[in-house]
Amino acid sequence: MILDKSLIDQHNETLASAQQKKFDFLQSSLQDEGHDVAAILEQLAAFQIAIPSWALGTGGTRFGRFAGGGEPRSLEEKLEDVGLLHALNQSSGAISLHIPWDIPQNAVAIKQLAASFDLQFDAVNSNTFQDQSEQDYSYKFGSLAHTDKHVRDQAIAHNLEVIKHGVDLGSKALTIWLSDGTDFPGQQNFRRAFNRTLDSFHQIYEALPADWKVFIEYKPYEPHFYSTVVADWGTSLLFCQKLGEKALGLVDLGHHLPNTNIEQIVSRFLMEGKLGGFHFNDSKYGDDDLTVGAMRPFQLFLIFNELVEGMTSSEVKNPALSWMIDASHNVKDPLEDLLQSVEAIKIAYAQALIIDRKALEKAQEQNDATQAQEILQQAYRTDVRPLLAQVRLDYGAAIQPLAFYREQKIRQKLIKQRGAKTYTTGL
Amino acid sequence: MILDKSLIDQHNETLASAQQKKFDFLQSSLQDEGHDVAAILEQLAAFQIAIPSWALGTGGTRFGRFAGGGEPRSLEEKLEDVGLLHALNQSSGAISLHIPWDIPQNAVAIKQLAASFDLQFDAVNSNTFQDQSEQDYSYKFGSLAHTDKHVRDQAIAHNLEVIKHGVDLGSKALTIWLSDGTDFPGQQNFRRAFNRTLDSFHQIYEALPADWKVFIEYKPYEPHFYSTVVADWGTSLLFCQKLGEKALGLVDLGHHLPNTNIEQIVSRFLMEGKLGGFHFNDSKYGDDDLTVGAMRPFQLFLIFNELVEGMTSSEVKNPALSWMIDASHNVKDPLEDLLQSVEAIKIAYAQALIIDRKALEKAQEQNDATQAQEILQQAYRTDVRPLLAQVRLDYGAAIQPLAFYREQKIRQKLIKQRGAKTYTTGL
Amino acid sequence: MILDKSLIDQHNETLASAQQKKFDFLQSSLQDEGHDVAAILEQLAAFQIAIPSWALGTGGTRFGRFAGGGEPRSLEEKLEDVGLLHALNQSSGAISLHIPWDIPQNAVAIKQLAASFDLQFDAVNSNTFQDQSEQDYSYKFGSLAHTDKHVRDQAIAHNLEVIKHGVDLGSKALTIWLSDGTDFPGQQNFRRAFNRTLDSFHQIYEALPADWKVFIEYKPYEPHFYSTVVADWGTSLLFCQKLGEKALGLVDLGHHLPNTNIEQIVSRFLMEGKLGGFHFNDSKYGDDDLTVGAMRPFQLFLIFNELVEGMTSSEVKNPALSWMIDASHNVKDPLEDLLQSVEAIKIAYAQALIIDRKALEKAQEQNDATQAQEILQQAYRTDVRPLLAQVRLDYGAAIQPLAFYREQKIRQKLIKQRGAKTYTTGL
Amino acid sequence: MILDKSLIDQHNETLASAQQKKFDFLQSSLQDEGHDVAAILEQLAAFQIAIPSWALGTGGTRFGRFAGGGEPRSLEEKLEDVGLLHALNQSSGAISLHIPWDIPQNAVAIKQLAASFDLQFDAVNSNTFQDQSEQDYSYKFGSLAHTDKHVRDQAIAHNLEVIKHGVDLGSKALTIWLSDGTDFPGQQNFRRAFNRTLDSFHQIYEALPADWKVFIEYKPYEPHFYSTVVADWGTSLLFCQKLGEKALGLVDLGHHLPNTNIEQIVSRFLMEGKLGGFHFNDSKYGDDDLTVGAMRPFQLFLIFNELVEGMTSSEVKNPALSWMIDASHNVKDPLEDLLQSVEAIKIAYAQALIIDRKALEKAQEQNDATQAQEILQQAYRTDVRPLLAQVRLDYGAAIQPLAFYREQKIRQKLIKQRGAKTYTTGL
Repeated sequence: MILDKSLIDQHNETLASAQQKKFDFLQSSLQDEGHDVAAILEQLAAFQIAIPSWALGTGGTRFGRFAGGGEPRSLEEKLEDVGLLHALNQSSGAISLHIPWDIPQNAVAIKQLAASFDLQFDAVNSNTFQDQSEQDYSYKFGSLAHTDKHVRDQAIAHNLEVIKHGVDLGSKALTIWLSDGTDFPGQQNFRRAFNRTLDSFHQIYEALPADWKVFIEYKPYEPHFYSTVVADWGTSLLFCQKLGEKALGLVDLGHHLPNTNIEQIVSRFLMEGKLGGFHFNDSKYGDDDLTVGAMRPFQLFLIFNELVEGMTSSEVKNPALSWMIDASHNVKDPLEDLLQSVEAIKIAYAQALIIDRKALEKAQEQNDATQAQEILQQAYRTDVRPLLAQVRLDYGAAIQPLAFYREQKIRQKLIKQRGAKTYTTGL
Repeated sequence: MILDKSLIDQHNETLASAQQKKFDFLQSSLQDEGHDVAAILEQLAAFQIAIPSWALGTGGTRFGRFAGGGEPRSLEEKLEDVGLLHALNQSSGAISLHIPWDIPQNAVAIKQLAASFDLQFDAVNSNTFQDQSEQDYSYKFGSLAHTDKHVRDQAIAHNLEVIKHGVDLGSKALTIWLSDGTDFPGQQNFRRAFNRTLDSFHQIYEALPADWKVFIEYKPYEPHFYSTVVADWGTSLLFCQKLGEKALGLVDLGHHLPNTNIEQIVSRFLMEGKLGGFHFNDSKYGDDDLTVGAMRPFQLFLIFNELVEGMTSSEVKNPALSWMIDASHNVKDPLEDLLQSVEAIKIAYAQALIIDRKALEKAQEQNDATQAQEILQQAYRTDVRPLLAQVRLDYGAAIQPLAFYREQKIRQKLIKQRGAKTYTTGL
Repeated sequence: MILDKSLIDQHNETLASAQQKKFDFLQSSLQDEGHDVAAILEQLAAFQIAIPSWALGTGGTRFGRFAGGGEPRSLEEKLEDVGLLHALNQSSGAISLHIPWDIPQNAVAIKQLAASFDLQFDAVNSNTFQDQSEQDYSYKFGSLAHTDKHVRDQAIAHNLEVIKHGVDLGSKALTIWLSDGTDFPGQQNFRRAFNRTLDSFHQIYEALPADWKVFIEYKPYEPHFYSTVVADWGTSLLFCQKLGEKALGLVDLGHHLPNTNIEQIVSRFLMEGKLGGFHFNDSKYGDDDLTVGAMRPFQLFLIFNELVEGMTSSEVKNPALSWMIDASHNVKDPLEDLLQSVEAIKIAYAQALIIDRKALEKAQEQNDATQAQEILQQAYRTDVRPLLAQVRLDYGAAIQPLAFYREQKIRQKLIKQRGAKTYTTGL
Repeated sequence: MILDKSLIDQHNETLASAQQKKFDFLQSSLQDEGHDVAAILEQLAAFQIAIPSWALGTGGTRFGRFAGGGEPRSLEEKLEDVGLLHALNQSSGAISLHIPWDIPQNAVAIKQLAASFDLQFDAVNSNTFQDQSEQDYSYKFGSLAHTDKHVRDQAIAHNLEVIKHGVDLGSKALTIWLSDGTDFPGQQNFRRAFNRTLDSFHQIYEALPADWKVFIEYKPYEPHFYSTVVADWGTSLLFCQKLGEKALGLVDLGHHLPNTNIEQIVSRFLMEGKLGGFHFNDSKYGDDDLTVGAMRPFQLFLIFNELVEGMTSSEVKNPALSWMIDASHNVKDPLEDLLQSVEAIKIAYAQALIIDRKALEKAQEQNDATQAQEILQQAYRTDVRPLLAQVRLDYGAAIQPLAFYREQKIRQKLIKQRGAKTYTTGL
């Protein structure tokens, strides 16, 4: 479905004066506080969040999956969907593919199609947590960490193939989420599993093009329920240290034990110059993969506080980061969910940009916890939504993307085009 | 596959003298401590744990499922598998069916088949957490708690149908695990969801035969990740209070928040005469559905401590309990896993039976925490396995069921009979 | 220290025009959304949060306590401090005393002093979790649940004495936080501990004046680390059911296991007409007793969403609630911390008041999770602080209480008056 | 109190024949499984667990402390108490001192006294989490991580002083548990706090004698409730990497977030040659500091499985480990609690020693999770207590230390000597 952009203009016209009023008020308040609003708008405009190809369909749990309708049936339709999102919010200018779910048959044509939507190809993702029908060996007991060299070799070869697809499309990074782990005490020798994995990683690392990176994602449990080889940020960092400078850690917000202080982990990775990127989602219990900002918006803000501080401090030497949503939309329209997620991410980013950093630094120096809290809350309690809407307006996107999406009955149109019982590849 | 019992006899002959030696030593130790070993053996022999029909196949997670081989392809083969387990351990003399996965086409024949394996039909389970192809309404947003009366009526009708199947087979209880809940704040009005559910429960309750019970299972999250209607024991108890004496709570060990003191919940239910039964499994993170006793055997022992105390105390008026395993075997042979689970449950039960209750009561009266711990640990640290083996030997089952299962290459035989790529119904 | 109110007027004059501008903008936005701003201001003005007498001093942990200066040395000075807070924010018009830390020597004089600050006496709190020097029996192994009747009788008598003090001062409720519990498996018989406690509660309940209530607070652990008699909302409710209509549950935000959905518990209590009150604080790990709103402001908002819905719905019959802060200020000036806490509570309340309830109800009816989230976030993301400031301005309190407190160097003045090394009673 | 050893002999005589019977049975069983029982006895005899000086008195929580009686009033009496434990179990041949609670006035005399009890001095512990009366600067906002160089210098100087005391007594290691952290978001710049700490650590590291080590303990929270500088094993390892080979990580069992797989962390540290030692205790909720083995004995066994595997594998290069109890005895007699803790540790160690490692390795190689579990459970379910008793008997300690302690009414004797209201230094 190709969006008629004049519809967006109509939408914006209706809302323009209300937006102007809100923006003027906010701009004036921020200027009173000493902020350069134009610079903030520019930073917000530049901030793009990749959409994972598998988030365009309805997800499920081990107890079942309730399909939605009008889901993309091909890689081309996935690009269309991300193109649609990007047209609506001008913030989703990249897609992250997952192999083998999204093998491009014709890379040149796919690149052209993506370019027509103004989309980049973000990190490519390998999958060795499921068996594919044509596989020689099963990943039931692991892949890159498997005790059997045949299985490891197969998993390494798969990763090399993923890199190739990525090269064809212009990606610059490989994300490895390695689900390898165990369900029972004694099932695995932890050290040897680490060393086998390290050996496998080395072989993949060697195959990386010169301008590529590899992101090592960590997760404490699920799909395995006793141990995971890359269980935590410490293990991810250890692998990155042993591999070299192209290897960087990747933080998925849902991959932590209860009560973890994630923002401090972000700071640690940045300090070591080893943060590669982010998988955004939200959760209450575990890797719930809910809409970003739906559950713990303040934590998200605190994470962006670290990111903004770290990426602007001269004390930190860290490569540019890769941003991606990684959620699973079980009860919402996936496109609506993604619009909400992107909005929540950019709100947190905008709030982090208006933190009074000099005052915060001073409060920290003086151990003035009360004042430090005031400073953060001043930013967090500010309603920054008019900034986001302004950027969208300036760049031809919709002032209210979700409202527009509903007004235009886009899902109904997609269902008409693609059918009510579609299944996209993914979880 | 029908087991040739003479093979068991051969197995037992080989191990008999070693078993005798171990049993004699243990019997003598227990007698020195004042225990009536014969009575303990009798209690152990009488203790039967129902096998759920869905635990006979390989489970999976939302990330995939790695099938095993030789899994039962029909209800008849499921009965065969439970019959096999029961022949091996004389402790699995019941099966718990799940509708619609196990609809008996001919109840009379199924009952006869079960009787031939000496099996009872334990609680029947309804399923409104998945859509079936022929359904009119979807359970995507709930079933008994749904805002739409049509959906609730459909879910109620399904439960009534489950009762009917249960009646045909001789079951005496319906277990309702209601997965209804929400993934996002605001999605549901908690109070109204409770009241709609109560109304649905009432209609099911009214349809229960006179000698039936209904078990209300609770779970804090999954498949929904913000709220669950029957989230905790308090809510389960509230429903049971409002429904009447046939309604009882059901405890699944994996359905608790981190660090929950489950044994105290067991005590509370018993105190109120409202404990209906148990779903046994083990876990480290959430509802991991691992082999019973594989992760927290001491907690299992403490739960049995409460059960033995509660069921023998004159202060407690609680109906007889229903015992069932509810696990998911993702990386093990399901039958091996079930043998290990039953063994772990009976070990915990045996240990609870040899607690010096008089001494414990005295230590409790005197707030002697050191002594109370000594008493529990004395029981827990005792190697009670010879008691279990003795009961098996006495009743014609295998001294070492798992070893026997492997020696006889039973899985390989099942694969030969049923095929290497079988899928049984279930998760 | 008695505040010269003309200083507040001066403070307000300086900030008045900026406040007017912000308020006008917000009022206009809210009116556009259909809200009755005057009614909201009235509700905010009426909302008073009791200050616990023990929160006026610096708290500590088991690892030590770092005292602050200028802390109140007597009940009179505690009233002064609360009076000061109330003068600054017009939202802290009540104090909650803790016996034996705050035994009034002359109740009449204390009542007059409180009246001079426009303060009420909220629920009185008993303490049987510490031994006092003159006690006959120790609470080391419990109080109302103790195995020894002498200890229980002593603890009951203490509670009766607390009621008496409360009657003298005009309180209308007794809060019982019963720390009784165990540290080791087997230490206590759970059922008997419950029954002894119930018996003790009954005796206290019988002594309540006709217009009094008793609040039964629950907590899963700490100071005991295996079990607690009143461990969860289910147990609290059970006690309240058995005691009668004057007995109500009390929710302390920090008294839950990781990931608990507290807002649903609030809804359950309200549904049963059994919610007595709240202890506000915030936490990341356990009962951390941090400044309200410092860690999980969105959760606080969701709780107020339930409270506003429940207290205004005709479906709910619940008595008026008691609101109190219960925090421990280890690294902040206690008065500053309390100003921040009250502000956070009122922000959450104001946000809950501007939820579009009709639209939310409709979204819930239609299972429109996306829209329900939008509606809640629309309220939550609104910067409602100008509403709070406006109420303060209207009632003669400070537009910015914390800024005023610092400008006026109030802590320094208190230190001058009371000394730099003062210790107030409390934790 | 100096123990008359002939009393132990009498005790042992009474129990000798029963012990012989149990030992013979166990020895025969173990020999049947191919174990070298004599070698196991030797390893058990050699295994010594240091007693921390602060564990000899009754602990408390922030809600209060209920003192016991007969607690040691001086360093000399503390040595006596540890000497007593060691005489009873021959497993507590070391003491770990805490400065400033245990500053030796006369190191030579103290060393002689310790030698008379056959005690070594294990790691010395510094304390910068509390203020001492004579201090210039407060640790309220940190010590080695403090923003103020004066405070850091003071804390560094204190650590150097602790090393000096340790040198005088023959210790070979310094344990730093750094409580520095924050209670509120924004209070501290995480990276700078890390760097300041690293700088402080460097200065301490430089002062270490050639044959000394420094142990960097980690803890996620408490006494601070938002962040901790050395929050997790990853941070501890990072510090150790940056400091050098004398710096090693220290694992306290209670210092982890809910559900952490501690045994894998142990394996990671060993793999990196960076494990320094252990603080043993047990817990259900957080750093509960309960008796070792009272709550999660199976986890303790799994940890010892890693330790035995790691310390015997040629793949691992890790220095010898330091073992210490770190618990807090709030409701038990501290000496009884320590006897129970030491017993639990040695049981876990003995069970780990009888794991069939070759079979386990084979099962791991074959991904035979069922068999791996069988192998571990075979060891864990074995009642190894007769091995421990045998070692004690062989070395002149008591067959049943706790029973002996009670028979001899040792606590009553200590109370008589030292008084009923004694307070020892510590928590």
